[in-house]
Amino acid sequence: MAEHSPLLTELIDSLKLLPGVGQKSAQRMALHLLKVEQDKSIKLGQVICKAVENIKHCRQCRNYTEAQICEICNSTNRKSTQMCIVETPTDLMAIENGTTYNGIYFVLMGKLSPLDGIGPEQLGLDKLEERLQSGDLEEVILATSSTMEGEVTAHVIAEMVKKNGLKTTRLAQGVPVGGELEYLDLNTLSQAFETRTNYD
Amino acid sequence: MAEHSPLLTELIDSLKLLPGVGQKSAQRMALHLLKVEQDKSIKLGQVICKAVENIKHCRQCRNYTEAQICEICNSTNRKSTQMCIVETPTDLMAIENGTTYNGIYFVLMGKLSPLDGIGPEQLGLDKLEERLQSGDLEEVILATSSTMEGEVTAHVIAEMVKKNGLKTTRLAQGVPVGGELEYLDLNTLSQAFETRTNYD
Repeated sequence: MAEHSPLLTELIDSLKLLPGVGQKSAQRMALHLLKVEQDKSIKLGQVICKAVENIKHCRQCRNYTEAQICEICNSTNRKSTQMCIVETPTDLMAIENGTTYNGIYFVLMGKLSPLDGIGPEQLGLDKLEERLQSGDLEEVILATSSTMEGEVTAHVIAEMVKKNGLKTTRLAQGVPVGGELEYLDLNTLSQAFETRTNYD
Repeated sequence: MAEHSPLLTELIDSLKLLPGVGQKSAQRMALHLLKVEQDKSIKLGQVICKAVENIKHCRQCRNYTEAQICEICNSTNRKSTQMCIVETPTDLMAIENGTTYNGIYFVLMGKLSPLDGIGPEQLGLDKLEERLQSGDLEEVILATSSTMEGEVTAHVIAEMVKKNGLKTTRLAQGVPVGGELEYLDLNTLSQAFETRTNYD
């Protein structure tokens, strides 16, 4: 039983680093990279190296950026008194794309999960504390996930915010827009019922 | 509405070169590459460049290899009188892994498809002709796909082989092992019925 050539095997193995990519997909990707114009594949390889070497965390909000301070923190058009706390850059982009929010962010790059070794330090909560004490902020919006870890993280941060006497809000929980009650999980339904709002 | 940083955007766009990867997957992959150990991501980038620059076609069978002649063609343990013709390196690997075939190969790197600009030249049929005329071969096994283009390709190659007076065989067509007749397409069923074999 023969194998692919050593270099091709190495390429396939390396591609398995990508999330959700197993042997079969990696093989398909490798053959595709060899098939398309050489320039494009080489560019991909180079961009991966360049990006990984140069992209760091923003000194203020911890979002990914190749500058010292990211574009959002640097922008003069943004309300720097509102800070939205998210878990990941993907969550940040979702809020940017889906809402009219125009404040600044703080990206935790994870959520508290002691069993995985993710504590306050890994989430940069010391940096967050500095920001909270700086006196520039009025409102902190908690936009962590609605999972167990997300809720714990939100709770810990809410305590920090409260100590600094700032306003804390969190995303509303309830029935998703377009969702049918019949298919809704009971926790969400119960929560939505408890926190029902005035209809006007 | 903010965007990712320019370099991160470039990384996401470049990752879309991979087959089956759209905006969402590319974004997930990019963030994953930034999250894992830097060494691993950089290695992936470097291996892509190195592989694309160094992997060429084997001079004899056209399979991918970084050497002049691939391992299979170079092997002294293989029967060099039998040549199996496949469309892709993936097909070659499937035969290697699934059968006891111990001959050599010729990899077309595609199938005849004039509308896509893939003619005899792109499939290296001139090189194949040389091999057929060399007098080293006894049997040519056609293992192209059972699609329209695959059949046309097989037909063209069969004509070439016949001219050189060599034995030509092709993979058997019929009911897949473990397949239920009820769910079989009618063409396959009809073909299997026509070419039924003696039961002994």
